Amino acid sequence: MEVSFRVSRPRPGLIEGKYPAECPSRIVLNHLTSRWGVLILLALEQGPRRWGELRREIEGISEKMLASTLRTLEADGIVHREAQPVIPPRVDYSLTNRGREASRRLLPLMDWIADNADDIVAPR
Amino acid sequence: MEVSFRVSRPRPGLIEGKYPAECPSRIVLNHLTSRWGVLILLALEQGPRRWGELRREIEGISEKMLASTLRTLEADGIVHREAQPVIPPRVDYSLTNRGREASRRLLPLMDWIADNADDIVAPR
Repeated sequence: MEVSFRVSRPRPGLIEGKYPAECPSRIVLNHLTSRWGVLILLALEQGPRRWGELRREIEGISEKMLASTLRTLEADGIVHREAQPVIPPRVDYSLTNRGREASRRLLPLMDWIADNADDIVAPR
Repeated sequence: MEVSFRVSRPRPGLIEGKYPAECPSRIVLNHLTSRWGVLILLALEQGPRRWGELRREIEGISEKMLASTLRTLEADGIVHREAQPVIPPRVDYSLTNRGREASRRLLPLMDWIADNADDIVAPR
């Protein structure tokens, strides 16, 4: 299935463009495409998750990295954290509108990777 | 400008799905969304580049990281390396067809980040 992703706009070189070192876009890029950030986005794109659900679903993530990546994405306004007033305590994580905008743009790449990864890795 | 990115397909949880630890899709995901991999893809999406051009264009990348990331992407069949038979020696890097498929799916996210990064980072 072919979907047209191309957004027509001039795309200048990186230096004179939008991704010089230390600029906001580089910071946000690093957050969203970090090793765990992208997997958290992918998990939450499927719906709200509790801490323990994320921990189990994102195989290999440590408690420390889950906590710090969620904090980063929450500070970016990508992830919403909601402590439920219940006993025992429960915290739900979900995507904000901004987070959904980002994850929606990440999905075509993720699908392409899932479809092509075996071919890419196989020849080794 | 709104573009429909959604590819309709079932999207199972990560565990029973396509991104368990150590699986090919996780490996390729880490290569493509690595700190420098994504910027190399973005640079080459604009056309072939020589080593020195990439080095200048991708602000902050070290020679070592440029070399190792290019090697990884070349082994993945994402980047094509071509040593030109000229004096002085010259090496050109470009995207393969597979690389263009990947970069095309990365662009909508990059454009969104460029458009939104200031708002995301500003409140700090």
